[in-house]
Amino acid sequence: MSITEKLDGVAVTTKANVYFDGKCVSHSVRFADGTGKSVGVILPAALTFNTGAPEVMEGVAGSCRVRLKGEAEWKTYGAGESFDVPGNSSFDIEVSGEPYHYICHFG
Amino acid sequence: MSITEKLDGVAVTTKANVYFDGKCVSHSVRFADGTGKSVGVILPAALTFNTGAPEVMEGVAGSCRVRLKGEAEWKTYGAGESFDVPGNSSFDIEVSGEPYHYICHFG
Repeated sequence: MSITEKLDGVAVTTKANVYFDGKCVSHSVRFADGTGKSVGVILPAALTFNTGAPEVMEGVAGSCRVRLKGEAEWKTYGAGESFDVPGNSSFDIEVSGEPYHYICHFG
Repeated sequence: MSITEKLDGVAVTTKANVYFDGKCVSHSVRFADGTGKSVGVILPAALTFNTGAPEVMEGVAGSCRVRLKGEAEWKTYGAGESFDVPGNSSFDIEVSGEPYHYICHFG
């Protein structure tokens, strides 16, 4: 359960992605091989995200509760833990107390 | 008045800096030469920031009104425009409507 503190050798898009009136803010990064990720934070809130491409959400600080589309169970993920989200799907996420910081891996 | 859309060849810190309950969120980046900057966004709000080191704030999207410490006048800055803030000082910043996206250069 190691925590990824930095992403090296990337280009970062200076304009942020602002979702849900700022409850989620991320910056997009791109590696030399063309791979894209984003680094973001979710403030205390209950949100539903839709996915296009499949995603892996990797926590780097804080924690969240997550329920994938079609599942009944909520699971809790913290720093150093990841969860997979299928493409063309959605998930509910709840953050309370401290913000949840993450890396979103696409594809 | 060109807009800096990307910062290339950087390491980005994955955990965001969250200020004022999330009204301002930034991610820190570091260049190979050790220079540090941050890319951030300010949501609609009226905030006062304190500076340690001198800063240059470079707008990349949206706009803001700014009043430096000790000045009476508010000035408006948009995308592609920058303003200098002295070290060990402060400034008032107001954002309304759309978020203000910036690069903060440390001096």
